[in-house]
Amino acid sequence: MSGFWDGQPELTRRLEEVRSAIREKARSDDSEVQASVSQLLESNGKMLRPAFVILASQFGAPDADRINRIAAAIEMLHMATLAHDDIIDSASLRRGVATLYAVRGPRTAVLVGDWLFAVCFSLVADVATVEDSRAMSRIVARICGSEVSQSAERHCVSTSVRRYLRRIAGKTAALFALSFHVGAYESGCSPDVCSRLRRFGYCLGMGFQIIDDVLDIDGLESMTGKPAGQDLADGVYTLPTVFALRNDDGRLAAALSRRPRSRRALASTAALIRERDGIRQALEMAQLYTERSLREISGLPPGDARTVLENVADSLLHRTR
Amino acid sequence: MSGFWDGQPELTRRLEEVRSAIREKARSDDSEVQASVSQLLESNGKMLRPAFVILASQFGAPDADRINRIAAAIEMLHMATLAHDDIIDSASLRRGVATLYAVRGPRTAVLVGDWLFAVCFSLVADVATVEDSRAMSRIVARICGSEVSQSAERHCVSTSVRRYLRRIAGKTAALFALSFHVGAYESGCSPDVCSRLRRFGYCLGMGFQIIDDVLDIDGLESMTGKPAGQDLADGVYTLPTVFALRNDDGRLAAALSRRPRSRRALASTAALIRERDGIRQALEMAQLYTERSLREISGLPPGDARTVLENVADSLLHRTR
Repeated sequence: MSGFWDGQPELTRRLEEVRSAIREKARSDDSEVQASVSQLLESNGKMLRPAFVILASQFGAPDADRINRIAAAIEMLHMATLAHDDIIDSASLRRGVATLYAVRGPRTAVLVGDWLFAVCFSLVADVATVEDSRAMSRIVARICGSEVSQSAERHCVSTSVRRYLRRIAGKTAALFALSFHVGAYESGCSPDVCSRLRRFGYCLGMGFQIIDDVLDIDGLESMTGKPAGQDLADGVYTLPTVFALRNDDGRLAAALSRRPRSRRALASTAALIRERDGIRQALEMAQLYTERSLREISGLPPGDARTVLENVADSLLHRTR
Repeated sequence: MSGFWDGQPELTRRLEEVRSAIREKARSDDSEVQASVSQLLESNGKMLRPAFVILASQFGAPDADRINRIAAAIEMLHMATLAHDDIIDSASLRRGVATLYAVRGPRTAVLVGDWLFAVCFSLVADVATVEDSRAMSRIVARICGSEVSQSAERHCVSTSVRRYLRRIAGKTAALFALSFHVGAYESGCSPDVCSRLRRFGYCLGMGFQIIDDVLDIDGLESMTGKPAGQDLADGVYTLPTVFALRNDDGRLAAALSRRPRSRRALASTAALIRERDGIRQALEMAQLYTERSLREISGLPPGDARTVLENVADSLLHRTR
């Protein structure tokens, strides 16, 4: 979704600085790291998390250079999880682009992910406050914990809405919340503004991940850049599937137990989910989270920064890829 | 090398507490994490790094509980690198025990390694000083950087002694140095004692890794628990090989370029290294580092703690596995 920030020339320029900061960090290292980091940056369209850091900082009095470095650290953390996720999922494509894992193999994907984790931590330790440095460490533990449970719960049809929500809270919403929090906190925002922005990020992240999971089942490959039904093929049951299983006469459960892998099997499983109202109910929940996120920021001072956030929440909810 | 700390009942007891602290951290998580962490702990004989933290703390006024937690964090960092190293090396055995990677596959090895990294960071952020927390982040970046260069330099016969030393400094000595440093620093030792212990750790780590690399080429499988020549098979040229290549008539370089993999080819390559004086020169350098390490601690107050360190330096130099 390059072009996501097209209406925001200043933000686009800042995000380019963040990319340069990441490339710069990689330049000091080995050529394999450099090439891999460039590859990851290219397949990284929206740069949502660093954009969130920058947008949140605009509610305070930001030191642009410091905020850029924190934004870079957060994006590197995200890139690290992507590099490792692709090994875990044996994924060959991400958003239509070949993954690092597919191009350079598991060895490089492990190493580059670790390198990104480490550089992210040392960057945070150098520039952020102790509190944020601690928060960051906890978030990483939480993201990894959620990945572990997602992996452990594969092929388990008895998963619940509650468990799904907990998993995506750890996997996605926690880092969205942190991005907004650090941007605000490191620019001297008041505790009230920090916690509103953090809660906004959390709800936005929940809605974002639900939509992501809906698009995986119901999206068009031509738009999302990856074959539909990847989660189903991996045995990862997301919200639409969990809702659909509640209305199931046994046919969806039976289809899942046959572990669909072919395009045809995946398409017919997706149809069963749609017929059982899984897509609609999931979209409804994404809508609820988006509304909650908007309520959170309605208490913030009006102005450009708030308007941008309102538009972001809306675009992420209505996206098709 | 279980039994390495047999003469030290108090230290053995403390290391058992460190193991329990690590198991406790894993218990709060998923069963896959628990089982994997137990497996890693079992194959982890000497627990050198946490022992170093505890030994160094005895030069100050340690808070045992806090030191145990820092020691646990450092061991978890080491375990994380092992879990990921085994993926990178596609290693099925480590010290005679099946690796996590071999038993549970790359997916779990990636996840558990990440989980260990993250928990380690959050533990450090919670209990250590800001300075040590920062130092730790930098060390991890350095360890990962060294792994990347080791991976990039595979099959490169033009590697130099200097490059080898830089690599093992990042891969091993930096974490040995940090273990001694944090143990001392967090127990309120003077800057002089901290830096002596840190330099002791550094030299000890250099000597330790050289011996490890010698044993890989010249050790008995029955003692080391892994087939000899693993590094040669992976194209990782360590100090004995680098020294031997300096005295080579072309036969060693030719043998390496054929990428030895069979037991027979590895044994004859090892013989070429031995004949070209690679083993002896490497052992000599390990000896030099050990002597330097002993000089560093000769300035510390005499007593039990110092005597133990002297014995450790000696046992690590003369070990056969």
